Amino acid sequence: MLYQLSKAGKLCVPAMNVNDSVTKQKFDNLYCCRESILDGLKRTTDVMFGGKQVVVCGYGEVGKGCTAALKAMGSIVYVTEIDPICSLQACMDGFRVVKLNEVIRQVDIIITCTGNKNVVTRDQLDRMKNGSIVCNMGHSNTEIDVASLRTPELTWERVRSQVDHVIWPDGKRVILLAEGRLLNLSCSTVPTFVLSITATTQALALIELYNAPEGRYKQDVYLLPKKMDEYVASLHLPTFDAHLTELSDEQAKYLGLNKNGPFKPNYYRYTFPC
Amino acid sequence: MLYQLSKAGKLCVPAMNVNDSVTKQKFDNLYCCRESILDGLKRTTDVMFGGKQVVVCGYGEVGKGCTAALKAMGSIVYVTEIDPICSLQACMDGFRVVKLNEVIRQVDIIITCTGNKNVVTRDQLDRMKNGSIVCNMGHSNTEIDVASLRTPELTWERVRSQVDHVIWPDGKRVILLAEGRLLNLSCSTVPTFVLSITATTQALALIELYNAPEGRYKQDVYLLPKKMDEYVASLHLPTFDAHLTELSDEQAKYLGLNKNGPFKPNYYRYTFPC
Amino acid sequence: MLYQLSKAGKLCVPAMNVNDSVTKQKFDNLYCCRESILDGLKRTTDVMFGGKQVVVCGYGEVGKGCTAALKAMGSIVYVTEIDPICSLQACMDGFRVVKLNEVIRQVDIIITCTGNKNVVTRDQLDRMKNGSIVCNMGHSNTEIDVASLRTPELTWERVRSQVDHVIWPDGKRVILLAEGRLLNLSCSTVPTFVLSITATTQALALIELYNAPEGRYKQDVYLLPKKMDEYVASLHLPTFDAHLTELSDEQAKYLGLNKNGPFKPNYYRYTFPC
Amino acid sequence: MLYQLSKAGKLCVPAMNVNDSVTKQKFDNLYCCRESILDGLKRTTDVMFGGKQVVVCGYGEVGKGCTAALKAMGSIVYVTEIDPICSLQACMDGFRVVKLNEVIRQVDIIITCTGNKNVVTRDQLDRMKNGSIVCNMGHSNTEIDVASLRTPELTWERVRSQVDHVIWPDGKRVILLAEGRLLNLSCSTVPTFVLSITATTQALALIELYNAPEGRYKQDVYLLPKKMDEYVASLHLPTFDAHLTELSDEQAKYLGLNKNGPFKPNYYRYTFPC
Repeated sequence: MLYQLSKAGKLCVPAMNVNDSVTKQKFDNLYCCRESILDGLKRTTDVMFGGKQVVVCGYGEVGKGCTAALKAMGSIVYVTEIDPICSLQACMDGFRVVKLNEVIRQVDIIITCTGNKNVVTRDQLDRMKNGSIVCNMGHSNTEIDVASLRTPELTWERVRSQVDHVIWPDGKRVILLAEGRLLNLSCSTVPTFVLSITATTQALALIELYNAPEGRYKQDVYLLPKKMDEYVASLHLPTFDAHLTELSDEQAKYLGLNKNGPFKPNYYRYTFPC
Repeated sequence: MLYQLSKAGKLCVPAMNVNDSVTKQKFDNLYCCRESILDGLKRTTDVMFGGKQVVVCGYGEVGKGCTAALKAMGSIVYVTEIDPICSLQACMDGFRVVKLNEVIRQVDIIITCTGNKNVVTRDQLDRMKNGSIVCNMGHSNTEIDVASLRTPELTWERVRSQVDHVIWPDGKRVILLAEGRLLNLSCSTVPTFVLSITATTQALALIELYNAPEGRYKQDVYLLPKKMDEYVASLHLPTFDAHLTELSDEQAKYLGLNKNGPFKPNYYRYTFPC
Repeated sequence: MLYQLSKAGKLCVPAMNVNDSVTKQKFDNLYCCRESILDGLKRTTDVMFGGKQVVVCGYGEVGKGCTAALKAMGSIVYVTEIDPICSLQACMDGFRVVKLNEVIRQVDIIITCTGNKNVVTRDQLDRMKNGSIVCNMGHSNTEIDVASLRTPELTWERVRSQVDHVIWPDGKRVILLAEGRLLNLSCSTVPTFVLSITATTQALALIELYNAPEGRYKQDVYLLPKKMDEYVASLHLPTFDAHLTELSDEQAKYLGLNKNGPFKPNYYRYTFPC
Repeated sequence: MLYQLSKAGKLCVPAMNVNDSVTKQKFDNLYCCRESILDGLKRTTDVMFGGKQVVVCGYGEVGKGCTAALKAMGSIVYVTEIDPICSLQACMDGFRVVKLNEVIRQVDIIITCTGNKNVVTRDQLDRMKNGSIVCNMGHSNTEIDVASLRTPELTWERVRSQVDHVIWPDGKRVILLAEGRLLNLSCSTVPTFVLSITATTQALALIELYNAPEGRYKQDVYLLPKKMDEYVASLHLPTFDAHLTELSDEQAKYLGLNKNGPFKPNYYRYTFPC
């Protein structure tokens, strides 16, 4: 959005793309979703995870968090992807990469995490098993084609808050969570720790924009300087009683780094195992 | 090195930083080390991993691969780090972040993966337990201060190829692998699959530099275009019988993407769980 | 209880110890707790698991389920045990085995799963960190010495159903869940699948006792015949679309088994990884 | 064997079934195999585990160790089983339970751990992929029907010690390890820790038989008394710096236990997660 404005020359102030700062993004997306997918599913459906067959559409941060959590709970997890790099990651992480249609008849749970639209279509929902669960962890409410389920031959039954049974003429029920909106926002909670990281990042970005000498930022979109990203992280280490190692003068010189950071080049891609 | 030449204006041809392409880096470092740390330790020492206390110095790609593998094998793993972002990752991944001195007396194995020098000093080696193992998965041979062990009061005993017992006057033995050089290169093997990814990436980079219209590349260092990175990945998917999902026209338009990629912006940081 | 009656000669009918049948016990205890510990903690406290230091008292089925789940979610887990065999298991599974007093000042969460009494004493509660959580997954309500917290200098504040803040004079708060009663029963749900296994086991035991020819069972306590245990399991396999392999005549003869089971000797101890 | 002699009345001295003592069995089988399956495969074939499709035949101790290790290394693992209880475990642990024929065409590696014969037949070997690996972790050399591969139309090529390529007329190669004998004995090592547990158990059994008052043991097969099993474990705890918790008098009384053990009833089935 900001990037589109910027391209169009319509951005009238400098902007920080806080969402793509490392700490914000990885905590809010990866680590947070690793926990909230379990929480959201349990609170709404009390489903047992062990032995369940699950397909996760999309293997970005959110998909990685969801698959890691469900695999650890004993689910059998399949992944769908459009990006060959993310597909290769999924393979190496132990997931079969399939097209949704290959597994649609056998899975117990579908979780969308793509940022795309109509990833699960009516045609696919028609072929799901009785009692299967469909939910969205991605963005907005476009990933599941929910509109296609609002037709006369299907009955909707609200069984509890955020949980609908969609009932086919033959009696088959598919359990739709949060009407296809975001499960983590609708049906689970965000830990205060994660909120703190997000809020700190936003506050530092504003302070930086306010304090910056004239000319440092033009009417464009910027990423948070890495040093600030590192500062956000360092403020949250005491929560875990984590003890940072400090570089000696000799080591800093050897590495060509300032002892206080930043410790990584700007193009560095952090690896986030989970 | 290339970046230093470039800064100094001494780079006389365009260069591709192939090492930092996504597929090359993550496979060669993360996924490869996840396997070779176990292989390297077993082949040299036959150590049992279960229950062992291990400290991994550095939580970059290599450190992440090593910690994930050892945790999965039942080791108790500690991490040391200088970077607060990587430290926070280590916490969220379930590792205590400590200074080396806090655990030096109790650990059974030290693994260095920092790219730094003198991460393990003589003073620390003096305090290690009898029978503990020290090895380097990082770079070069600088991480362990091996020179400090070549003093008259310590005896070296070569017990097999790549394995030395360094013996203190009181009889304590520390097992040094590959004389502090890279364990994965010296004592384990690299899967052909990983070699294939690396070689493909290098070949594509050369082809790109050769075929590029004049002016596309100056005397500077470039990262491999993402589209090529994706191409390398897609060439390796059939090995895993992975089936890529294709965007519909409507979806590609919605996402603002070309159906054939690239699928991610250049600043995208892939998350590599393991 | 039944065993005590039996020893005392006061058992006036045959009884089946259904609780110790394999399927009942492992599902109800191990697999169920693996999920309900996360669910119970999230619903009551919304705590983030990643990076938290947790001590689990007792490494029986319940303890194994709790530790496996929390380790997978990125917690750092310690174990206390009285039994050397279970202690050795905990070591090999990657947990430090400690006395509670060694870690009491640093842990964020205590979970009791011992079946014992006063495993967490007032003296230990006094030394816990501000904001730490104490709960019981074991049995009854004896494991945490809750009575010791009902003294004038401590204030209790009910913050929501099943959640009390116990407040020390210096303002420190310890979060006590379900007043020390069973967290899984009080604050989470039991999947219908697990209920089905338990109910099937009980029903089969009653049918067996009813149908058994006179003299097969005396006034004593019996374990469910293994064949029935296997039958309960086989009834639940279709849920997972699991396909059992059948022995050929030649193989059955080689193994000395009936093709329809039982497949294990009575003394067989199933290994339940999780 | 001993049990068969005993049944036949041909056992002329008392015997201890040391193999089924808890510590011996679980260490020698489960924990040891968790490591040696990786070691044995790497040393012989240098195969990369990530992304590989593997079928493990048999989900007893050995099968559990193998599946846990390979899942952790990023393999996609299928299980075959004849026992419904073990099958249900495999489901809950996150593995698809299949018949071998369902996956024979797609797997990269077959590992047998059944104790049975002809688990992999010529007909199945005919359908395997080029380059796939077949090995045996179970017992003896009966599990893979190796004899069926010694026919004129197949060529055997010894590529290194313990590694044969069996070559079909169309050029397809299947990699057979250790000619179907035990991979862990032939191609990997046993940690001294595990040997120590086994040797201690055997020594204690002999001492018990020698010291036992006349009449305690008849000409039958006995399991090691649990107290000795616990003693073996306690002797090995210092290796891991594990600190055992001791029962207070009050707690011992509450539990009806002796403070020094045994801590479990004889019928207790230890749960061994891995």
